[in-house]
Amino acid sequence: MIIAVDGMGGDNAPQAVIEGVYQALEAFPELTIHLYGQQQVMQPYLKAHERIQIVACSEVVEATDDAARAVRRKKDSSMARILQAVKEGQADACLSAGNTGALMAGGLFQVGRIEGIARPALATTLPTIDGKGFLMLDLGANADPKPEHLAQYAVMGNVYAQKVRKLATPRVGLLNIGTEEQKGNELTKAAFPLIQQEALNFEGNVESRELLNGVADVVVTDGFTGNMVLKSIEGTAVTMFTMLKEAFTSSTKAKLGAVLAKDGLRGIKTKMDYTEYGGAALFGLKAPVIKAHGSSNAKAIFSALRQAKEMVEYDVTATIQQTIAKSN
Amino acid sequence: MIIAVDGMGGDNAPQAVIEGVYQALEAFPELTIHLYGQQQVMQPYLKAHERIQIVACSEVVEATDDAARAVRRKKDSSMARILQAVKEGQADACLSAGNTGALMAGGLFQVGRIEGIARPALATTLPTIDGKGFLMLDLGANADPKPEHLAQYAVMGNVYAQKVRKLATPRVGLLNIGTEEQKGNELTKAAFPLIQQEALNFEGNVESRELLNGVADVVVTDGFTGNMVLKSIEGTAVTMFTMLKEAFTSSTKAKLGAVLAKDGLRGIKTKMDYTEYGGAALFGLKAPVIKAHGSSNAKAIFSALRQAKEMVEYDVTATIQQTIAKSN
Repeated sequence: MIIAVDGMGGDNAPQAVIEGVYQALEAFPELTIHLYGQQQVMQPYLKAHERIQIVACSEVVEATDDAARAVRRKKDSSMARILQAVKEGQADACLSAGNTGALMAGGLFQVGRIEGIARPALATTLPTIDGKGFLMLDLGANADPKPEHLAQYAVMGNVYAQKVRKLATPRVGLLNIGTEEQKGNELTKAAFPLIQQEALNFEGNVESRELLNGVADVVVTDGFTGNMVLKSIEGTAVTMFTMLKEAFTSSTKAKLGAVLAKDGLRGIKTKMDYTEYGGAALFGLKAPVIKAHGSSNAKAIFSALRQAKEMVEYDVTATIQQTIAKSN
Repeated sequence: MIIAVDGMGGDNAPQAVIEGVYQALEAFPELTIHLYGQQQVMQPYLKAHERIQIVACSEVVEATDDAARAVRRKKDSSMARILQAVKEGQADACLSAGNTGALMAGGLFQVGRIEGIARPALATTLPTIDGKGFLMLDLGANADPKPEHLAQYAVMGNVYAQKVRKLATPRVGLLNIGTEEQKGNELTKAAFPLIQQEALNFEGNVESRELLNGVADVVVTDGFTGNMVLKSIEGTAVTMFTMLKEAFTSSTKAKLGAVLAKDGLRGIKTKMDYTEYGGAALFGLKAPVIKAHGSSNAKAIFSALRQAKEMVEYDVTATIQQTIAKSN
C-alpha cells in the first residue's frame, strides 16, 4: 500500500511530518510512503529506509494561498503532486497537514467525486468520555448544503463506522438544537425525513451537549455548524487545560497536588488529545484524501497515516461507491 | 423596582426559585418581588418579607407543553401571569426558569417587540478565561434568521454591553468559521457588510475556538449556531469536570492531590460556572424577559435576578428602542 505524503504542509513541517512518517513505517510493515517536498528543506530530517521514496517538488502551497486556486496554480507543489499521484493511481491515499481549503478544493477538482455523490464531506473522529469516539461530518467542506447532502453524509459516515470501526449497526444522529423530531432549522427539519429513508440505524436528533457522552457513532451536520461545534469543543478543552495548568502551578501545595494526581490527569489529556484520533478525511472522493491538523506533531501525523491506511485497507471508498450506486 | 417571578418554572422549582428570590431581596434593597405560583406548592418555602408579594395562580406551564401555545392556553399559569404583569406595567421585568420555548413565544406575543425590531434574540453571558465574560446572541430565538436580523442583534448586544458592562466601545464580533471577511456561509457573508454599516466597534469575524479567550465582548450568530456552540461549550466543560472528578478519586494518592490543589480547582469551577453568569435575556421585547437555566439552583436564580435588575436599572430596553429608532 502506498500513501503519498505532503512533506511541506502544516505548522511543524517538514520535521513533524517526516518523524510521523518514520513512526508509521515502523508500525505498519505493509506501508510504503512517497514523500513529496523540497529536497533541500526535507534533507536534514531524512534517513535511509527501504519503504520510503522521496519525490522532489519545487513549490509549496502556503497557509495564506487562495484556497480555490492554490493547487491549480502551483502545479509542482507537494500538495498538487500528492493529489495527482492518487488520481493517476500511483498512490492509494494521500495526506497533507497544509492549507485545508486548498486541499479540499484540490481534492474535489483533481481527485474528483464518486459518481452519485453530490458533495464531499470532511469527517473526523472526536473523543468521547468512554474512549470510543464518534465520527462527525461535515466539518466545513460545504457551508451551505442541501438536505439531500446531509442524507448522503449519513450514508458515507455509516460506511466508515461499519468498515473501520467494525460496528454492525452504527447509531447515526442528526446534530440539532433539540431531540424532538420537529426541532431545528429549515435544513435539519428537511434532512430528518430524508435520513430516515436511508437503510441506517438512525437515532434521530442529537444535541451538541451530549456529543462527548457518546450519544451516537456517526453525527451528521452541515459544514458551518460542524466546524463551529468542533472548534467550540477544542477551544473549551484547551481553555480548561490552560486553567488547570495555572491552578496546578499557583502554589507549592498545588504543585505537589499535581504530582500526586498526575496519572489521572494524564489520562484526561490523552482522552481529549486530538493527536490520538487521526486527521480529517474527505469522504466522497474517488480516493482517500486525509487532512491532518495544521498544528500536527509527529504523533498526529502518525495517527492520520494510520487512518489513511485503514481507509484503504477496509475499502471505504469502494464501499461508499457501491452503497451510493445501490441507493440511486 | 418590581420583578415578577415564575415560582413554578425549572427543574428545582419552587424551592430553588424561592431561595434565590430571598437571596436577591437580601442583596438588593431596591428590589420588590411579585412571586407567581400555586400557593400550596410554594407555601413550605415561604417566609414573611416586606418586599415580597405572593400572587396565586392555578396553572403551571410544563416542560413538555407545546411551546407555541402553552402561554395562550394556560392563561392562569405563573408563566402567562408574569408576562401579563410586565405587559400591563405591574412589573418592570419578569423571570422564569421554565419551558424556554413557551417563554419565548409568550414573550413575543404577550409583551411584544420593540417597534423596528424584526426578531427578538436570546442573549446570555458566557465565561472567558480572564473572568470578564462575553455576551452571545442569538441562542435559539430564531433558527433561520436573515442577515438584517443579525445586524440588529449586533446593535442590541452593543447596547447591553455599553449599559450593563459599562464598556465604552464594546468589541463586536460575528461568529464564523474563519476570521477572513470572505469566509462563512451565505448568511454570515451577507450579514458582514450590514454589521459593518452600523455605528459599532465591529471587529469582524471571530472563531468559536477563541470565544473563551475573550476575543470579543459581543458575539453575534444565528439561533441555531448559537444554541449549538453554547451547548458544545457547556457539554465539554461538564465532561471535563466529570473526568477530573474521576481522576481525583481514582486512588488515595490522587485524592490527596485533589485536597492540596483544591483552591485552584475551585477557581476553575467558579469561572466555568453558569450559575455565576445570570440567565438568558430576550432582547428586543418591550420589557426585560429573563430565562434562567432550567436546572437553576438558588444561586443561578439570584444571578438571573441581578441581571434582570441591571437591565431595568440601566434602561437597556429604552436604549435599544432609541438606538433602533435612530438607525431606521
